[in-house]
Amino acid sequence: MLHILYIIAIIAEAMTAALSAGRRDMDWVGVCIIAWVTALGGGTVRNILFNHYPMSWVEHPEYLLITAAAAILAAVIARFMSKMKTLFLYLDALGLVVFTIIGCQVAQAINLPTTIIMLSGMITGCAGGVLRDVLCNEVPLLFRKEIYASAAIVTGAVFLGLEHFGISEVISMIIACIIGLALRLLSIRYNWQMPKFVYREEWH
Amino acid sequence: MLHILYIIAIIAEAMTAALSAGRRDMDWVGVCIIAWVTALGGGTVRNILFNHYPMSWVEHPEYLLITAAAAILAAVIARFMSKMKTLFLYLDALGLVVFTIIGCQVAQAINLPTTIIMLSGMITGCAGGVLRDVLCNEVPLLFRKEIYASAAIVTGAVFLGLEHFGISEVISMIIACIIGLALRLLSIRYNWQMPKFVYREEWH
Amino acid sequence: MLHILYIIAIIAEAMTAALSAGRRDMDWVGVCIIAWVTALGGGTVRNILFNHYPMSWVEHPEYLLITAAAAILAAVIARFMSKMKTLFLYLDALGLVVFTIIGCQVAQAINLPTTIIMLSGMITGCAGGVLRDVLCNEVPLLFRKEIYASAAIVTGAVFLGLEHFGISEVISMIIACIIGLALRLLSIRYNWQMPKFVYREEWH
Repeated sequence: MLHILYIIAIIAEAMTAALSAGRRDMDWVGVCIIAWVTALGGGTVRNILFNHYPMSWVEHPEYLLITAAAAILAAVIARFMSKMKTLFLYLDALGLVVFTIIGCQVAQAINLPTTIIMLSGMITGCAGGVLRDVLCNEVPLLFRKEIYASAAIVTGAVFLGLEHFGISEVISMIIACIIGLALRLLSIRYNWQMPKFVYREEWH
Repeated sequence: MLHILYIIAIIAEAMTAALSAGRRDMDWVGVCIIAWVTALGGGTVRNILFNHYPMSWVEHPEYLLITAAAAILAAVIARFMSKMKTLFLYLDALGLVVFTIIGCQVAQAINLPTTIIMLSGMITGCAGGVLRDVLCNEVPLLFRKEIYASAAIVTGAVFLGLEHFGISEVISMIIACIIGLALRLLSIRYNWQMPKFVYREEWH
Repeated sequence: MLHILYIIAIIAEAMTAALSAGRRDMDWVGVCIIAWVTALGGGTVRNILFNHYPMSWVEHPEYLLITAAAAILAAVIARFMSKMKTLFLYLDALGLVVFTIIGCQVAQAINLPTTIIMLSGMITGCAGGVLRDVLCNEVPLLFRKEIYASAAIVTGAVFLGLEHFGISEVISMIIACIIGLALRLLSIRYNWQMPKFVYREEWH
């Protein structure tokens, strides 16, 4: 079940990433690389930081083919995708919570402390988008946009909290996903923002 | 033989990287770091992704000294290098195919699946240039330029294909290098491009 | 003692990093992430390159909490921090030499060659700031600013040189820190620069 959601999520991430690549006039190789980095980069960064090998896409090279195909499809049907903007924002939000839960589970499996389990969820959910923005030469949206990383933190916290109080993994996961998803979608709908820190003085 | 070509390639990569650093007014420390990242970064990224340690430059610290010396030399003789632009484009293309073959061999040695072997070749050939562009605050050229990553993929595919049909490693390597080099040089000569995906709509 | 200096250094790095985040209008999540990357990124990059696990912040998750708290404090008292600009420049210089010494010691502990020990010191001292600048979409200051990476190299060289001549680790460390700190502070005071390489020709 989580696996099916994961596949849906990496396809959705790859497709929206392709549009980011298109905004920078990338060729089709660039489109595929941006899609890989966005869809698979979060888990990859997490695995590097926690020395957890092999990478999922080394064990399942079909993930690379699926995401590349999705990205090229997105480039072909870009005009049509714009009309499904809302669907893709929903799928992206789904991806965020699914990646976050998976990141928490990976960190739990290697017995990391609680703070790090939540961080692992956040990294898995968010780092792909950060790498995409760095490669597209933009300040990562994550750092400035609506509730995004915060939704990952809440998802992880709810998941761990419920498990802590003896609720089964599956139920905890479902509740955490629903809460995280609701938070993310409401923040898009009502344009909720975290407080911003604006500072203009130069020191150098 | 491959080792000698490798040394020539990292020197050439370090020298052209130094010019990129010069375009951003970097000091000599910056020039060296950009040269290291460009010449040695591809193999380093590959090794991190596939948990393959130690790094070549940890085992052979002389690579760091050679590339730093080459970069500083390039900064000194920059005016003269412009006149040898074609030579350096050729050496850069040589570096691409040599790095790619080495990347494929490393992945073969640790028994990775075929898709991943080709990806390993592409990462080894291309990631150094991507890191250089990220550190110079540019959208990676790789994602927009003539046939570059594609030449790496073709080189890897020919190499693996020939080996698959029972041709010896050395012969496969030579043929793959010649084809990859020809593809890259012809794409520079005739300005071949991969189809570009241009998309202008903002979603945010 | 070195541990106490390390804690002071990561707090100072986190606080100045928060101001960089504020220059890019980041929200409070972005501020924390930039602070983590700047304060803990150097050691993290070093550990990844040398396959040295676990990360310090996985063993001591309190480092994440301390640096996040310091960053948010800095955002709150930003106006007041400007008045203590000199203090923070001093603390940043202290951080540079402390991180450098720690980086050298880690590399020594895993028996790396001398060149790599010095490089490890430089990476530990400098990579956090490079990551910060990449995430803030700027050409890394390190590559263009006053004596910074060079101060790390000198600190490492003095430390290793003194140890080589039989001087105790503690004395070597103290002398290296004083010399590195003096070099860095004098370079700020008198605006010393490494020679710059300025190159304008485009090859592409």
